[in-house]
Amino acid sequence: MKRINTYLPLVALAVCGFAPELLAEDAPVEPTGAAVSHYAIDNLFLFLAAVLVIFMQAGFAMLESGMNSGKNAINILTKNMVDMCAGILIFFAFGFAIMYPGSYTDAIVAPSAFFGFGGFGIYGGSPEVAAGNLHPQIDFLFQAAFAATAATIVSGAVAGRMKFAGYLVYTVILTGLIYPISGMWKWGGGFLDAMGFYDFAGSIVVHALGGFAGLAGAIVLGPRIGRFGPGGKNMPGHNITFAALGVFILWIGWFGFNPGSQLAIAGGDNTNAVMMIAVNTALAAAAGGVFALLISWIIGKKPDLTMSMNGVLAGLVGITANCDSVTNGSAILIGAVAGVLVFGGCKLLEMLKIDDPVSAFPVHGLCGIWGGIATGIFGGHPLMAQIVGSLVISAWAFVTMLGVFFAMKAVGILRVSQEEEMKGLDLTEHGQEAYATA
Amino acid sequence: MKRINTYLPLVALAVCGFAPELLAEDAPVEPTGAAVSHYAIDNLFLFLAAVLVIFMQAGFAMLESGMNSGKNAINILTKNMVDMCAGILIFFAFGFAIMYPGSYTDAIVAPSAFFGFGGFGIYGGSPEVAAGNLHPQIDFLFQAAFAATAATIVSGAVAGRMKFAGYLVYTVILTGLIYPISGMWKWGGGFLDAMGFYDFAGSIVVHALGGFAGLAGAIVLGPRIGRFGPGGKNMPGHNITFAALGVFILWIGWFGFNPGSQLAIAGGDNTNAVMMIAVNTALAAAAGGVFALLISWIIGKKPDLTMSMNGVLAGLVGITANCDSVTNGSAILIGAVAGVLVFGGCKLLEMLKIDDPVSAFPVHGLCGIWGGIATGIFGGHPLMAQIVGSLVISAWAFVTMLGVFFAMKAVGILRVSQEEEMKGLDLTEHGQEAYATA
Amino acid sequence: MKRINTYLPLVALAVCGFAPELLAEDAPVEPTGAAVSHYAIDNLFLFLAAVLVIFMQAGFAMLESGMNSGKNAINILTKNMVDMCAGILIFFAFGFAIMYPGSYTDAIVAPSAFFGFGGFGIYGGSPEVAAGNLHPQIDFLFQAAFAATAATIVSGAVAGRMKFAGYLVYTVILTGLIYPISGMWKWGGGFLDAMGFYDFAGSIVVHALGGFAGLAGAIVLGPRIGRFGPGGKNMPGHNITFAALGVFILWIGWFGFNPGSQLAIAGGDNTNAVMMIAVNTALAAAAGGVFALLISWIIGKKPDLTMSMNGVLAGLVGITANCDSVTNGSAILIGAVAGVLVFGGCKLLEMLKIDDPVSAFPVHGLCGIWGGIATGIFGGHPLMAQIVGSLVISAWAFVTMLGVFFAMKAVGILRVSQEEEMKGLDLTEHGQEAYATA
Repeated sequence: MKRINTYLPLVALAVCGFAPELLAEDAPVEPTGAAVSHYAIDNLFLFLAAVLVIFMQAGFAMLESGMNSGKNAINILTKNMVDMCAGILIFFAFGFAIMYPGSYTDAIVAPSAFFGFGGFGIYGGSPEVAAGNLHPQIDFLFQAAFAATAATIVSGAVAGRMKFAGYLVYTVILTGLIYPISGMWKWGGGFLDAMGFYDFAGSIVVHALGGFAGLAGAIVLGPRIGRFGPGGKNMPGHNITFAALGVFILWIGWFGFNPGSQLAIAGGDNTNAVMMIAVNTALAAAAGGVFALLISWIIGKKPDLTMSMNGVLAGLVGITANCDSVTNGSAILIGAVAGVLVFGGCKLLEMLKIDDPVSAFPVHGLCGIWGGIATGIFGGHPLMAQIVGSLVISAWAFVTMLGVFFAMKAVGILRVSQEEEMKGLDLTEHGQEAYATA
Repeated sequence: MKRINTYLPLVALAVCGFAPELLAEDAPVEPTGAAVSHYAIDNLFLFLAAVLVIFMQAGFAMLESGMNSGKNAINILTKNMVDMCAGILIFFAFGFAIMYPGSYTDAIVAPSAFFGFGGFGIYGGSPEVAAGNLHPQIDFLFQAAFAATAATIVSGAVAGRMKFAGYLVYTVILTGLIYPISGMWKWGGGFLDAMGFYDFAGSIVVHALGGFAGLAGAIVLGPRIGRFGPGGKNMPGHNITFAALGVFILWIGWFGFNPGSQLAIAGGDNTNAVMMIAVNTALAAAAGGVFALLISWIIGKKPDLTMSMNGVLAGLVGITANCDSVTNGSAILIGAVAGVLVFGGCKLLEMLKIDDPVSAFPVHGLCGIWGGIATGIFGGHPLMAQIVGSLVISAWAFVTMLGVFFAMKAVGILRVSQEEEMKGLDLTEHGQEAYATA
Repeated sequence: MKRINTYLPLVALAVCGFAPELLAEDAPVEPTGAAVSHYAIDNLFLFLAAVLVIFMQAGFAMLESGMNSGKNAINILTKNMVDMCAGILIFFAFGFAIMYPGSYTDAIVAPSAFFGFGGFGIYGGSPEVAAGNLHPQIDFLFQAAFAATAATIVSGAVAGRMKFAGYLVYTVILTGLIYPISGMWKWGGGFLDAMGFYDFAGSIVVHALGGFAGLAGAIVLGPRIGRFGPGGKNMPGHNITFAALGVFILWIGWFGFNPGSQLAIAGGDNTNAVMMIAVNTALAAAAGGVFALLISWIIGKKPDLTMSMNGVLAGLVGITANCDSVTNGSAILIGAVAGVLVFGGCKLLEMLKIDDPVSAFPVHGLCGIWGGIATGIFGGHPLMAQIVGSLVISAWAFVTMLGVFFAMKAVGILRVSQEEEMKGLDLTEHGQEAYATA
């Protein structure tokens, strides 16, 4: 173990400290005439969207910390901090160039329908960059925030029992390889895109990927001690106010995630699209929150706040793929169904004795799939392509990460000892307490 | 009681799940030529403002949760979540079309000076929509966030003793009827608008309405057990850090609330107005915070943080009606007076033995009225119209909601039992604890 | 003491309540033709940036409260609230006109290379205002938020032992005199600017100033009881989740701080600059977070969350002066070095037995200096001017505030009694508890 702890930093030092000097710099775009205003407006818009998506990291941190035991709060917060910090660096180093290799003329690995690699650092990017509408830097920042989101979804599913060194390995692999490779299949112009699969802002590309990776982690790790079996019980979070704050922040952040994915706001059609997307996002979240609350009330006899919070997030995940393609009424229906689905998904995991402390799979995995399929049902996109694309990316995430987690188990960097788990990861992994008394 | 719990969800299911399919869709606007940039800028601006106002819900949640007992935190957070979720759906279903019926040519109830109803869903909206400057969807989102704000003000005043089912009834009535009906009198072109009453961003239309509705609730409910009477004592909040965070977030959100109410930023006059509004908003908040702190220090012998927080909010409420009409110096004076008023209002409620746990009435009711009148004194609007308008809307909110709360009391869905109150609403109403120990 | 408590409010009342009526009003700018769009875009951009910078106050409040004892939370939050409220009012009253006197034609004190004073209130401002690109009001709001940031950095360094009345004196002096006077030397066109010193967004002008002021405070106050000496121990924060939230919020706020300092986004060059700045800001923060975590892991044997949080902030401080002048690769290096420096700085303070509870000096002081020098090394600005400018402003802050704090000590308004400190400032200074149990 100690050797791994020493080794990882050195690799990271090498990647972060020396590689940058080798990196190509982007060539700034110089628009002229009337396009100057539009260029400023579009980039300002994506800058705002990127900031909102980055803010989601605060939301995930609060949600996941609050929904778990106070003895693991430091551990979860450190994971979230690392997902963001290491995620941005790794996506800068090579993730971005794997995900958007299509516009590279001198790629290191020539882009095919399945893989490509342009080189280290920021060149190319989304088609809007090639068209001269977006600066490559802000395109990178927006996309890097998406990568960090995919990574951080998993931290909730594996909370309370995973080694921190193992988590570092996981986050590097997911952010640098798993996410950008399948992301390229759709957003980088790969085979799923060619097939007609549609995923506007990432119900599948981001959320189902993260949700199924989290499911793999939860399965390989096994449940927390005391969760199931004789005497097993629901393990409530230590601070639901933090968790609720997290959901409010995530909702706010989603106004960057979905509207920002239009990648443009200037020009009548773009403006109109962004406004419709914003309202559909709000309506689906609202419907998810209301319906999850109601179903928990009807079946569980009490209006359950955490289920309502799950419902809001489920509605948001469900609308993400199709927020530009459906009517307001459909957005409400998509959110409402997501709110019911997330309730069912939580019960299903409980029946299967899979321990997912923050319901990452029901919210992001299950409702991600629902979003992908709803895009076919309500959004006018070919249903079969939606089903295939949703299953391909989910299976990719699940199978590859199952392999990664099993490999980590074999090497002995996956799960902490029983004693460490009982004592809490904060003290044993980090030597700190979240709530010290003076 | 059980029958009510079952009945409410079914009504909500009917409204949310089936009605949307009947809803009309908005017709997107298509500007041409030079107007394209302005259209993008204005809509981007209102989108940003809407996001900031929605963020205020997080602020209210933190403020109200922190200022109350930890045994009622789940209850308060659930109310806030429902205010936002159900609020958006109800305002979408019919609230918006009640508040802005003026632009409907085929209204279901033809608009008069007092009431109108265009139909279900989003058509019409603010005059800026009819002028083709704003997309109807973003106008809706901005206005829906205002409705949710009005609703959530009340949750603080009735904290710690109200049944959750009763609260659901309340929030539907306020968001769907009480708020949009009187809102139409001013912002929908009704009789108060015709009379010359001015309320730029809602000191009266939003805040006084919420504050007086909260006062009605606090009176009908009666004080929390142990608040007044023999052995009665001040009941401090369980987490002032959360509450302070809430105030900071609310201040941030107000930069959407007030500047956004200009509904446009493109064009020299609009740009200038928005910038002046932003600064007046900041100055009034700052002055309110300083003066409430000083008055608490002088009279109470200690600099009181929660009073200073109230002062910030009081200053914000006071400047809301007139932030576009007054000088920077006047903004400071308006905020300073609000900071003193809120201190007096808190003392007054205490004398009258009215229990308003988060000072919702002094902040939003009293300083809302002050904002309405200050608009006459400092803003150059006719003082008499300001007084009449302020009193009419406040009385409307107080009297109608007094009736609603008394009716709920008669039906038995208003107040929890003494035993439930002592045990805390989190366990008795929701079966959850906010701060479980592992 | 009681006399001081009474006297301060009266002075504040005089300044805030009466002075405004004497204040000049700004003259709004009226652009015409194609410039209208650019004017709207630039002002909207700076409005957004100002809101983000103001949000940083919430971040500082959460960070500083969480990193200290729960018995001092109210005290810290009150300081943060006052830094913002009083800071805005004082910077409005005279700070702004001291910092940007260059554009005043009828100045009360004619601008020289060292000092000038235009008059009370908002006229003039940044060169972009004189050029007609920015409204003076939003320029003021953005700059006032910077002043409040400088002030609030110190509150962390002096936490747990300073009298509240003394803190009020401090914040008025720093916001109204110390910060704007040296700020004018660079941003107001003073002698450091003429010398070729470069500080894009304030590594030195804001952060090193605050950090060295904090160091002066920590030295004059002396350590908290029990921090050093026999039985002395590290005093961990009472709520690291709050602290982590604070760091996430500060990171978000920095996207206003740095990109906003371009003061314009319209026009191809401005747009490109802002986008590059945003990415450099993110990369430096990420590198700082990763490297501080790694160094704490290698040397301290455990991955330390609070050190990683310090690293994020250190990276942000380090990149602030040069985010517009360096490549992405250099941004990563600057952040990485800052992450290592902040670790060393914390150890150094510990060795010197200087008690800085939130590491304000290592983060803002030390890494501020690093940012100033890195601007010479990586940003192509003359290294000697960078060194001189960095030292001059740091020395200015340290020496003047050393004097102020010693004077307060002499008068007896600096440090609370031993008994008060042990009991906690919340009860003794404010008569409130942050975490009351019902």
